[in-house]
Amino acid sequence: MDLDDFVAKPFLERRARFAQRLAGLPCLLPAGSARARNYKGNPFPFRASSHFLYLFGLPLEGAFGLFDGRQWSVFAHPPDADSALWHGPLPALADLARALGCPVQPIADLARSLPPKTATIASTAHETCEAQSELLGRAIKPGTAEAVDHPLIDTMIDLRLRHDGAAIAELRLAAEATAAAHAAGMRATRPGLREDAVRAAMEGALMTRGMTVAYSSIVTVHGEVLHNNHYHHPMRAGDLLLVDVGAETPGGWAGDVTRTWPVSGQYSSTQRDIYDVVLAAQKATVAGAKPGVRYRDLHTLAASKLAEGLVALGILRGDPQELVADGVIYLLFPHGIGHLLGLDVHDMEDLGDRAGYLPGRARPGEFGIRYLRLDRDLEPGMAVTIEPGLYVVPAILEDPALIEKAKGRLDRQRLAAFSDVRGIRIEDDVLVVAGGDGHEVLTKAIPKERAAIEAAMATV
Amino acid sequence: MDLDDFVAKPFLERRARFAQRLAGLPCLLPAGSARARNYKGNPFPFRASSHFLYLFGLPLEGAFGLFDGRQWSVFAHPPDADSALWHGPLPALADLARALGCPVQPIADLARSLPPKTATIASTAHETCEAQSELLGRAIKPGTAEAVDHPLIDTMIDLRLRHDGAAIAELRLAAEATAAAHAAGMRATRPGLREDAVRAAMEGALMTRGMTVAYSSIVTVHGEVLHNNHYHHPMRAGDLLLVDVGAETPGGWAGDVTRTWPVSGQYSSTQRDIYDVVLAAQKATVAGAKPGVRYRDLHTLAASKLAEGLVALGILRGDPQELVADGVIYLLFPHGIGHLLGLDVHDMEDLGDRAGYLPGRARPGEFGIRYLRLDRDLEPGMAVTIEPGLYVVPAILEDPALIEKAKGRLDRQRLAAFSDVRGIRIEDDVLVVAGGDGHEVLTKAIPKERAAIEAAMATV
Repeated sequence: MDLDDFVAKPFLERRARFAQRLAGLPCLLPAGSARARNYKGNPFPFRASSHFLYLFGLPLEGAFGLFDGRQWSVFAHPPDADSALWHGPLPALADLARALGCPVQPIADLARSLPPKTATIASTAHETCEAQSELLGRAIKPGTAEAVDHPLIDTMIDLRLRHDGAAIAELRLAAEATAAAHAAGMRATRPGLREDAVRAAMEGALMTRGMTVAYSSIVTVHGEVLHNNHYHHPMRAGDLLLVDVGAETPGGWAGDVTRTWPVSGQYSSTQRDIYDVVLAAQKATVAGAKPGVRYRDLHTLAASKLAEGLVALGILRGDPQELVADGVIYLLFPHGIGHLLGLDVHDMEDLGDRAGYLPGRARPGEFGIRYLRLDRDLEPGMAVTIEPGLYVVPAILEDPALIEKAKGRLDRQRLAAFSDVRGIRIEDDVLVVAGGDGHEVLTKAIPKERAAIEAAMATV
Repeated sequence: MDLDDFVAKPFLERRARFAQRLAGLPCLLPAGSARARNYKGNPFPFRASSHFLYLFGLPLEGAFGLFDGRQWSVFAHPPDADSALWHGPLPALADLARALGCPVQPIADLARSLPPKTATIASTAHETCEAQSELLGRAIKPGTAEAVDHPLIDTMIDLRLRHDGAAIAELRLAAEATAAAHAAGMRATRPGLREDAVRAAMEGALMTRGMTVAYSSIVTVHGEVLHNNHYHHPMRAGDLLLVDVGAETPGGWAGDVTRTWPVSGQYSSTQRDIYDVVLAAQKATVAGAKPGVRYRDLHTLAASKLAEGLVALGILRGDPQELVADGVIYLLFPHGIGHLLGLDVHDMEDLGDRAGYLPGRARPGEFGIRYLRLDRDLEPGMAVTIEPGLYVVPAILEDPALIEKAKGRLDRQRLAAFSDVRGIRIEDDVLVVAGGDGHEVLTKAIPKERAAIEAAMATV
């Protein structure tokens, strides 16, 4: 890590805002540690806790941030010779303190520095939870919280929900790199190669920018598997390639974009028809994103637009609103319209629906909409994805209980005419703003009109 | 996973051999589960336990292998609709059983199927250890073992130490892909780019072969940091690039190769001098690898050859054997000559020195040689790395206690004349065989003579 390049100001401001809200509640936030792959000495690349990154900005492995009720400090591992030899010199704690703008003490002093009744947020890693349990003298597991923790958690949600200037700058950086990756992916696609050739081009474009993927890339001719992490299929001329790839900045902020492009460089007429239904729904939903709008209503809007388009194509029959109300549309659009975006690609999903759902709102239990990860009213500074899609999923279409819902309103024969479409999704990252249209599409540089995609693919 | 391509025979044979040795001892082996990155729904790519892979060959997330004292079976998650939608259809347990050649039962039946006093190997993941603890009714943590577990652990070590034909075939596959990655890296290197451009080319070459990295790549102009996982430095014409990158096959087997090449495509005269010292030591050590040879003696041989070369260059003074015996050479070669190679890049390092050190041999405590990960007598079927290196490490050269050892035998002024060398390592994967030279270099296709590297870099 290069401390000279580190700008502490946004983090000092966040910690100050946080301290004000906490009103004297002491709290402890672990950065976490690298997670073993096949053995401890061969870990996955270290990814610090998003809560820690939000307040301190540096991925300090094994460190803890402590608010003792009055001030913030960090407890970190002092540099040692062995670690300098193997992993490079660590900064002296005094240098770290200067960079962070808060006291930094050796980790060995943490236990005796903890005030009673210190709140915490359970790590997503069991080993870090064990350290938290030991320090705080109570059982802590991933996902659990006690009464003392709730004010801390709610403060974290409250601040991270609405992005400040520094956060928005990071999201723009992620969007830019994501755009470069998608451009590289479009150029790298050609019949006869395998999916992983496109993945390599895209992840390579991120790597050469010093970034990584915010989540496991989806690069697949089988877009009907929603989180498909296999890359071994050959790409044939008639296939669509569904590509859901997003950058993570060195600061930890995520981009999350899906495009669906034709392997041959040209959409077939059936692919065009379905693509345009998804694109129209996506644009209408993005246009609807503005302060005060309930996110669930955007989901319903997208579902209605998709239903409308499918009725026009003869694949569904009936009134679009009813097709949504009866859940028929979810047979072909079996997921939510999107989610919060920030330091996590599904921002704050480690806190469960406490972050994504406004208090008093609960996640519906019905198929399709039960996958909706967000139901808050939009506010300026929130970043969300808008990602409608249409999929032909055998597991759904062969499920009699689900199909029964359709009561004949799904024309299977007509659907079969579109057999060169298995999955199409179009996803952008949208920042809600106060003025103008009420939103800004952070990822607008990535082509999504058919002609623009075909043109980008032709510039090899 | 494509069950049609799966060949069960080697795993059936290993399980049979294992059962024979276990003599009725029941044992339980977890495959493990995907590890959360920033939250549970955003995990790192799943990497199954090497012990499980060794016996069953398939990365069955969340599954357990059980030897009940008479026969092997697997307990796995039955397919469900939600998982089919998000992650693709899982095979039916009956299909899995057919592919594996052993009974497969639902995971829910595992608890009631466990014989008393079942042995296990603690997972490297705390969450999997929790599942093991609950199933076996005793506290299990990463790295711990009770008396009942030792026969299982020793059997595992005994079998995994000497590779069978299927294992050797996998190691050859890893070596081939590693060769392709190094070729791509040499071609991608040029002044003005950053280290991560070379990393992207190399990891991309692995990705397009359906492989991943066996460990975090090292691609650095700062080779003096032994496990340097930063990639942001610009590559300048006078720099050497130290590249330690190895493939992991879909079956989980590792390659592990280091080459050090000049960013400009041409070594300087000072770089040539040091390179040739390392190369001569590496070749002599590889030549010495044969059945019956103690690995620690290979380490000493390498150290002596390095000392010899540095004496010839005037960097060290005195008798090479004494420079090794007194530890002076370790000021510039501060690590072990290599390690076991197999399903883990440091094979079975999760079992500690129990795997790497012959019973009765202990790891020395002195600087330098304390990093030697292996001290067994070589046997046919063992695969090891041979990886001498020379490094100018500020943390060592500025340590008065370490420098005191040299008693004037390190000529700092002469060393300063080689200031365009910070770290050079040359590493191959070597299989010990019964006949001929007593070994086979699995990674011999990767250029390591200076002229061959310069030629490979010129073919852009």
